[in-house]
Amino acid sequence: MSILVVGTVAFDSIETPSGSVDRELGGSASYFAVAASFFAPVRVVGVVGEDFPREHIEFFEQRGIDLTGLQRKPGATFYWRGRYHEDVNIRDTLDLRLNVLSEFDPIVPQPYRDADYVFLGNIDPQMQMQVLAQLGGNRLRACDTMDHWIQNSRGNVERLLGSVETLVINDSEARLLSGERNIVRAARAILKMGPKFLLIKRGEYGVLAFSDSSVFATPAYPLEEVFDPTGAGDSFAGGFLGQLARSGDHTERGLRRAIIYGSVVASFTVEDFGLRRLKKLTGEEIEDRFRRFLALTDFHT
Amino acid sequence: MSILVVGTVAFDSIETPSGSVDRELGGSASYFAVAASFFAPVRVVGVVGEDFPREHIEFFEQRGIDLTGLQRKPGATFYWRGRYHEDVNIRDTLDLRLNVLSEFDPIVPQPYRDADYVFLGNIDPQMQMQVLAQLGGNRLRACDTMDHWIQNSRGNVERLLGSVETLVINDSEARLLSGERNIVRAARAILKMGPKFLLIKRGEYGVLAFSDSSVFATPAYPLEEVFDPTGAGDSFAGGFLGQLARSGDHTERGLRRAIIYGSVVASFTVEDFGLRRLKKLTGEEIEDRFRRFLALTDFHT
Repeated sequence: MSILVVGTVAFDSIETPSGSVDRELGGSASYFAVAASFFAPVRVVGVVGEDFPREHIEFFEQRGIDLTGLQRKPGATFYWRGRYHEDVNIRDTLDLRLNVLSEFDPIVPQPYRDADYVFLGNIDPQMQMQVLAQLGGNRLRACDTMDHWIQNSRGNVERLLGSVETLVINDSEARLLSGERNIVRAARAILKMGPKFLLIKRGEYGVLAFSDSSVFATPAYPLEEVFDPTGAGDSFAGGFLGQLARSGDHTERGLRRAIIYGSVVASFTVEDFGLRRLKKLTGEEIEDRFRRFLALTDFHT
Repeated sequence: MSILVVGTVAFDSIETPSGSVDRELGGSASYFAVAASFFAPVRVVGVVGEDFPREHIEFFEQRGIDLTGLQRKPGATFYWRGRYHEDVNIRDTLDLRLNVLSEFDPIVPQPYRDADYVFLGNIDPQMQMQVLAQLGGNRLRACDTMDHWIQNSRGNVERLLGSVETLVINDSEARLLSGERNIVRAARAILKMGPKFLLIKRGEYGVLAFSDSSVFATPAYPLEEVFDPTGAGDSFAGGFLGQLARSGDHTERGLRRAIIYGSVVASFTVEDFGLRRLKKLTGEEIEDRFRRFLALTDFHT
């Protein structure tokens, strides 16, 4: 089963209470693709500038990620600079330069169009819709979005939600999107907007999953240090869709286990800056932490 | 198996985004005792003033709660007035009158002293220590405390922690007590202060439980409305110790199930003001929600 992701490939400059890095490889498509690549073949649609170094391309290729859909355009790669507070659930954007992303015209290569799983990472919802228009015959389509688009392009976000099965967003975005402060009511309202399945990420507090017929709640894997939360949400989505693609199991149990795999991968991501931890990660470590996750939440057996 | 609780019996005036009530029955011992009474016999040590009405006494007695240790003193009952924000995780204390509590000399009636389970609810840690000094032969002693005592009576709080097996506090108190922002590191530091078992309440985000050899994480029961969070923490402790007393099962599995029972009772408490929901609650409703809780968190079976 193959996975297609469209999203940003970026340079991130990040300050956290634990330290700082400059122009680290980042972006929603990068985190998603690397996370999902531990489970199934991944194909990326995105854009980088002339400044994007060969080493990052080679890293993606080493992970078996197909970059046929990654455009290289004149200009600079998308750049984000942010700072996390002592409470790493809060961050400020200090600089954001769209660069080549501002003119991005996402083209899905012909062989990608019937990918089994599709993830529309956080970019302009118009671009996400452009990608959807090129697709056909996919088994599951999921998307992410963010407060910026909900506030400034609500119409497009709502059209997008009418065209995907699964929405993956965080709790503050769910509140903003629904206008409901209570997260269960927010979820009910969002399910009426189109998605059949809604995943609400709550950072260190875990994940809530909603469909018309079920609710699933899980805590996050407790960590002694959250070094850098950047990319946790996209890593979660990558692990989730990756595991679905690997197992093909869309039963309630299969979906729940995929959520835990997503949480496991995200728990590794935040252990170091950017993609550094995922670069060293092994499939064995993922399975080991999945088993620990089972053990630390089990009162069922 | 019997349970002894010492703590406040109070009048609470509460404003929440959903409404307000005046001089409602409240206090840590009240919530704990009523919650635990669904599981095992409960005995209360506390103090009320001359203004404490007969109807509240009758309510406790209907729940089978033994009030031999509840002193009635000249003066007014402990009074608290507070307001919850739109985000009900945040509250302001608007008025607090210790009244008869300021002179409280907790005396544990002789037949209470060897109660199997003891809960020292949130009062001055010196009073909690006075109670401990009168006890003997208990199977498990647990306590709660709050930011006020951690900030202003740290020495007494630390002495108290050297004398109990179990500490039940919320996440911000755990951070304050340990000086650690990360909750896992906070837990490790607190376990070094004495308790063998630490329960960290995270409100709508659930509970983390730590011992030297294990970690348990559970989400809270997702609710469409949190009407009034007052007493949720004490209800949790009451359900937890109540279930331990009912089952006598202190294995890891038994402790975890007791945590879920505590969460279940707390999830009912917040559905209405004060103790109103617990007044109508039945054992059948508790078992039903426990089963739902199993179902909504299960990816293990």
